[in-house]
Amino acid sequence: MNLDSRHANHNLEFSAVVPAGGSGTRLWPLSLPERPKFLHDLRGTGASLLQDTVARLAPVASRTMIVTGVAHAAAVREQLPALGEEDIVAEPSPRDSMAAIALAAAILERRHGAHVFGSFAADHVILRPDELMRAVRVAIDAAQAGAVVTIGIEPLFPATGFGWILRGEPLAEAEGAYHAEAFVEKPDLETAQAYLDGGLHYWNAGMFVARTDVLLGHLARLQPTLHDGVRALAAAWDGPDRAAVLESVWPTLTRIAIDHAIAEPIAAEGGVAVVPSDCDWIDVGDFAVLASIVEPDGDGITRLNRSAPARALDATGMMVIGGERPIVVVGVDDVTIVDTPDALLILGRASAQRVKDAADSLAGA
Amino acid sequence: MNLDSRHANHNLEFSAVVPAGGSGTRLWPLSLPERPKFLHDLRGTGASLLQDTVARLAPVASRTMIVTGVAHAAAVREQLPALGEEDIVAEPSPRDSMAAIALAAAILERRHGAHVFGSFAADHVILRPDELMRAVRVAIDAAQAGAVVTIGIEPLFPATGFGWILRGEPLAEAEGAYHAEAFVEKPDLETAQAYLDGGLHYWNAGMFVARTDVLLGHLARLQPTLHDGVRALAAAWDGPDRAAVLESVWPTLTRIAIDHAIAEPIAAEGGVAVVPSDCDWIDVGDFAVLASIVEPDGDGITRLNRSAPARALDATGMMVIGGERPIVVVGVDDVTIVDTPDALLILGRASAQRVKDAADSLAGA
Repeated sequence: MNLDSRHANHNLEFSAVVPAGGSGTRLWPLSLPERPKFLHDLRGTGASLLQDTVARLAPVASRTMIVTGVAHAAAVREQLPALGEEDIVAEPSPRDSMAAIALAAAILERRHGAHVFGSFAADHVILRPDELMRAVRVAIDAAQAGAVVTIGIEPLFPATGFGWILRGEPLAEAEGAYHAEAFVEKPDLETAQAYLDGGLHYWNAGMFVARTDVLLGHLARLQPTLHDGVRALAAAWDGPDRAAVLESVWPTLTRIAIDHAIAEPIAAEGGVAVVPSDCDWIDVGDFAVLASIVEPDGDGITRLNRSAPARALDATGMMVIGGERPIVVVGVDDVTIVDTPDALLILGRASAQRVKDAADSLAGA
Repeated sequence: MNLDSRHANHNLEFSAVVPAGGSGTRLWPLSLPERPKFLHDLRGTGASLLQDTVARLAPVASRTMIVTGVAHAAAVREQLPALGEEDIVAEPSPRDSMAAIALAAAILERRHGAHVFGSFAADHVILRPDELMRAVRVAIDAAQAGAVVTIGIEPLFPATGFGWILRGEPLAEAEGAYHAEAFVEKPDLETAQAYLDGGLHYWNAGMFVARTDVLLGHLARLQPTLHDGVRALAAAWDGPDRAAVLESVWPTLTRIAIDHAIAEPIAAEGGVAVVPSDCDWIDVGDFAVLASIVEPDGDGITRLNRSAPARALDATGMMVIGGERPIVVVGVDDVTIVDTPDALLILGRASAQRVKDAADSLAGA
């Protein structure tokens, strides 16, 4: 493996970076642009996905940094009162995942010196957080050794909606880590089935662990404009010129996903490792997935953020989310009702993928 | 025919009596005990069924009297500002249709002398009101001659949920009227089909026309307690003792439907006539019927009392009633959504008959 181990004088801290973005359009009207998925309690546990994400990382993280849009900074602060002002990076506008993660890495490195950090999306559900933390510890070891490390999720079905990672030989530097041979974008069903059967492919959940200096070093070579931009921003971030530099530099940042900017080219060079984990990662992409992770009550109705009466007559598989009025479903199976102050969605479970069109259809109203 | 023509000195006025009762439980939560079906605009025309009923009768009626429960008197008054206090009879508690109609007849006769009156439920839809008024005029002629007259609705299908009337020979006294041979309660499907095929049976829509003295004369003979009660009430109604007599007499009134008290026994005696009419009478008994009488908009969605946006994606036959938030249905066909401040009903059209259970299911909440 071609690891970048030039910088050995990094410290042993671990910073957790949580990009909190994405609007979750297939969870409309629960998830709205002004109140996206990560701010919601989608498991009925009392904690939002963002709060879950931060809590899950606490056992391994020396600190946590949230990167979010300016529109959501106040809500993030409210949900995470233990974080300081300096732990929340507010982006003036979305510039895709590479800019968000690289800016966090650059700020963290400037504050704490080169060290290992990891990036974990704010809107995923992990049913086995301890197992994920085990994998993250392995990833930290591999990252110390100079790898860009991704967590590879043990696949449960031939998913065509996710990216996949091909595992290579075991990595000498960290037990449980492997060389990542390649990243594959959303495959067709036949290919996905072959991946599942072959046992060498994992789902790419977009979790990356690396040394700040390693990641930024790759970036300097592969995306120099973006690298220079985030370095300039980081230099000004904790001083009086932040606003001025943001205004001049932010619009210049290249819009590119971390997979394309770093993971794919570095994997081709042999610099990426993958740590498999069967942490039961769930991308709660739509209401059908959501229905599958919330337990129904004794009456067969699945309730989320719902205390007002709900009844089903000749209606199995009912799910009701939110709302303060009594709801009765009569003679409709597998219906999901999302009752919010903004809108009411009546969804046949099989059509969950079409929900993103629902908000669009109203936009033209 | 054995008509009671003893009293020939009646005047030629016609009083329309509109019993406004019934809770419409299969239209929950649109129709509620505190705001029953007849108070609602179920056709989207801007007029309630009660207002429609009164307007429809105006061409033939010298006056209109509403008989309703005390709980609804204020709402009735509000919807019918042209009526005077004396035109609204408020029942302390429901005593079934015979008491309501006989009390109205007794009050009207005391005020105006014996004359022909007719009783027409407040919660029916008539798509061809002119045709019904033609039939009512024929019925008035037959009633002048001493018959108790019912309007027989030309049947459109082998209904098992309605009563039927068997037509006999033409009535000499009024062209278009026939002797009514018998009233049949809800028949089984085979019998109903035979009725439909035979062409001699009509639906019983509960519309009766008679002279006040004829009806009360039959009542004196067949239900003397009820007769004496309503006569006593009528004698006190427009004086200072109304409340006192109501309190003492009302609880003694026999609870019986006009069909059982008068129509069936008098038909057996040969004293009932039927006037067939193809007035497109509709008993809006449930949401499936309601959906059938309201035209869908250009987008295929049927809207009633609804101006907020509604959209259907992969969803045909959507009906939405009320509500002020946007509603989107995705992937559910033939669903009716009733959105009221009290409750939300999601109904598969085929289950319309089960709606009465929906309110009950919440009552135990």
